[in-house]
Amino acid sequence: MIDFRPIFFTIGILLTTLAVGMCVPAIADLISGHSDWRVFAGAAGLNAFLGITMVLTMRSGDTRISTRQAFLLTTLSWTVIAVAGALPFAFADLNLSFTDAVFEAMSGITTTGATVLTGLDQAPPGILLWRALLQWFGGIGIIVMAVAILPQLQVGGMQLFRMESSDQSEKVMPRITQIATAIAFLYVGLTILCAALYWIAGMSGFEAISHSMTTIATGGFSTRDGSIGFFQSAAIDWIAVVFMILGALPFVLYLQAVRGNPLPLFRDSQVRWFLIIAATGIGLMVAWQTLHNGVRFGEAARFVSFNAVSIMTGTGYSTTDFGLWGAFPVALFFFLMFVGGCAGSTTCGLKVFRLQVLYANTVAQISKLMQPHGVFIAHFNRKPIPQSASESVLSFFFLYILSFAALALGLSWMGLDFITAVSGAASAIANVGPGLGEVIGPAGNYASLPDAAKWLLSFGMLLGRLELFTVLVLFTPAFWRN
Amino acid sequence: MIDFRPIFFTIGILLTTLAVGMCVPAIADLISGHSDWRVFAGAAGLNAFLGITMVLTMRSGDTRISTRQAFLLTTLSWTVIAVAGALPFAFADLNLSFTDAVFEAMSGITTTGATVLTGLDQAPPGILLWRALLQWFGGIGIIVMAVAILPQLQVGGMQLFRMESSDQSEKVMPRITQIATAIAFLYVGLTILCAALYWIAGMSGFEAISHSMTTIATGGFSTRDGSIGFFQSAAIDWIAVVFMILGALPFVLYLQAVRGNPLPLFRDSQVRWFLIIAATGIGLMVAWQTLHNGVRFGEAARFVSFNAVSIMTGTGYSTTDFGLWGAFPVALFFFLMFVGGCAGSTTCGLKVFRLQVLYANTVAQISKLMQPHGVFIAHFNRKPIPQSASESVLSFFFLYILSFAALALGLSWMGLDFITAVSGAASAIANVGPGLGEVIGPAGNYASLPDAAKWLLSFGMLLGRLELFTVLVLFTPAFWRN
Repeated sequence: MIDFRPIFFTIGILLTTLAVGMCVPAIADLISGHSDWRVFAGAAGLNAFLGITMVLTMRSGDTRISTRQAFLLTTLSWTVIAVAGALPFAFADLNLSFTDAVFEAMSGITTTGATVLTGLDQAPPGILLWRALLQWFGGIGIIVMAVAILPQLQVGGMQLFRMESSDQSEKVMPRITQIATAIAFLYVGLTILCAALYWIAGMSGFEAISHSMTTIATGGFSTRDGSIGFFQSAAIDWIAVVFMILGALPFVLYLQAVRGNPLPLFRDSQVRWFLIIAATGIGLMVAWQTLHNGVRFGEAARFVSFNAVSIMTGTGYSTTDFGLWGAFPVALFFFLMFVGGCAGSTTCGLKVFRLQVLYANTVAQISKLMQPHGVFIAHFNRKPIPQSASESVLSFFFLYILSFAALALGLSWMGLDFITAVSGAASAIANVGPGLGEVIGPAGNYASLPDAAKWLLSFGMLLGRLELFTVLVLFTPAFWRN
Repeated sequence: MIDFRPIFFTIGILLTTLAVGMCVPAIADLISGHSDWRVFAGAAGLNAFLGITMVLTMRSGDTRISTRQAFLLTTLSWTVIAVAGALPFAFADLNLSFTDAVFEAMSGITTTGATVLTGLDQAPPGILLWRALLQWFGGIGIIVMAVAILPQLQVGGMQLFRMESSDQSEKVMPRITQIATAIAFLYVGLTILCAALYWIAGMSGFEAISHSMTTIATGGFSTRDGSIGFFQSAAIDWIAVVFMILGALPFVLYLQAVRGNPLPLFRDSQVRWFLIIAATGIGLMVAWQTLHNGVRFGEAARFVSFNAVSIMTGTGYSTTDFGLWGAFPVALFFFLMFVGGCAGSTTCGLKVFRLQVLYANTVAQISKLMQPHGVFIAHFNRKPIPQSASESVLSFFFLYILSFAALALGLSWMGLDFITAVSGAASAIANVGPGLGEVIGPAGNYASLPDAAKWLLSFGMLLGRLELFTVLVLFTPAFWRN
């Protein structure tokens, strides 16, 4: 039997934190005189009551949790937070259905950025702030998870990122707590810096803060229907590009840089690969835009860089309807969705390190074909990849493609056309936001989809955010056997 | 330095065989009084001259070939046969461009079935017969290769199908030659049986033979623009379904069945998985057709079974424009393209045994997540999968998806729209034939594509047919180093 007490205890803490977070939009709506403040205050009260009750009743002597408890805790906490975070959407003036409210909250907390809302430009500040906050919490949440929990759970090759001292089990937790705290401070710092730059570049204070939270979290919720494109400012575009990239790199490396050792950041092969993939994609698309569509180089560079980085990092902002750029960009955007950013960042997708491991293994395979009796060892970041990590990554890749296919088939069963179904599935599982095509493309919106599709997409976002295995393991009978 | 003599010697034999094959359409055109007989006779003469010259000049004492020579021989021979087989298309009355001729021949020899021709119903018998013969040769060629060469080359996990006696190297070649010969007889027998049934069901003798050759080869070239749909016969549809499935199962098992031991055929897990996947796909699509489109069950079962089996096995016949069935079938057809049939059959695609290996590995991974210190060994056909075979399959899967993405991006660069580019790439690499969408869908044709796209697709067909690694290994510098 699994002891649920430590699980509910932790969820209680998270719910209480969420309740505190809800006070921010409540205050914002109160100041601006919008009646939605009651909704936020009410939801905050409810969550605080539930959270504190859980904390008080579920306290148990043992603070260590088992592997099974960790899996259950992870999936359950993100699900509960999505539902609790949906309350304001369901009861505010927006009049969203329960389905739409959960979809929006799940899209927020997983930093996806897919939305069912329109008329954002006229929306009260509370709702806009709540969307930004959900993504901001989701962003730091996933970094902490990637540092503290996933490597221990050995999910999808994340064991490659175990702390070097992780074998001396006594010292690990204090050190991980210390690192997580430091990263959280850094996250706040980067958010403030980004907001300041947005503000200098011409955004209002409110919009600068809202966007900085969803930029660093590579979330993509905006306060405008036109997303970042609304501002029509090259400066804002480039600031966003820089901070989306910062959000996509391993935060642990920033920590070392801040402590006076920036070398690992520049030597890290994952960072290099990320930048090379992004630069290649941007280069090809700029070539297409200038050669094929006759766009001036400067303009092409700006719009391509912004939208390509936005899609690849899974942010999901847009500055133009890139669906109109033609055949090649649409296909490239589709495949970029799968890439994602680096492990230990706020991004989702396959992640660059997995592509590196897959590539290294394939190169080793090809060498082995020519010398069947030779021994070829795949390397990652100048270190040999342990057998178990390789297998883990390879299985992850298969499961990723399989989940994508299942999701796309499910969506098409609900009547979504081919491009909407496949791009919607890819976008959800990689936590990108917009899809391709007319319905859910950068100029579209998820509002018109059937409810069943919204639930399926919400599940896909959760699946992708928690690295598939963490969720799917709960669906195996063996998990529940004693 | 690689000794090219045994390579050219073997290619010489193949060219001579091809020349003999060309006499068949020459005779057919001569009898029907069509001037194309001169083209076939001329091409046969040229190929015979080249082939015999090669055989005579390249004879060397050593009959054993190295691994490198085997890779080079495989890729080179399929390429040469495609170009040599294109001669009749280029010089016949059709007036095809060199590009179109090579595309058609490559599509033939790889048993893909994508075509640039229209007006088949009025075409002279020689050309129709030549298309069928190319696929028929390609079909037996790939089975022999899968039995005799690929397991030795250890390409993409094919080492799982090594003969049990393969370690006693002295006895292997005679035994493999014996098996290959037996399979060839079986192949001829199945072709005759299929032709007889088609003829009884109402096809003319000529059409029965032409179609039986492209059915058992899971090739898909037809003598009619309307493909099998032209005949509007339920009997013909079901005969085709049965023989497409027979073409998609491991031929080695038929051999055992013919020798009085049918048990392995029914116990083989690859056969079971193939049938289960096909049945699931058909079941879902029949449900869609009856529930969503209001088609009668009997009619739905017939049309769905035919077209789903045709796409999954990579045959590529069609009996109706299934692109009009709606959202779900289109997406399902897309993913079925990737599956393919069994190893050791005439089919292409990922192949069922690889999906089994990937699945078994993923299940083992999930078990390992729950018990990190447990040992979980993946099984295939009731035997543990050797580490090396697992790694080989996993890398194959990554390379397959990567090649698909590169091909799709290349096609979209040439201006092909999203669904044409992605389905064209999937269809070429899995040797299916038709793609999806209006341009290259079941009601369309590859004629209108730009030349560059046709070359890329031809390369994709070769890549898929030769299990990726066999071709790609030639592009590594290490292959050419001493």
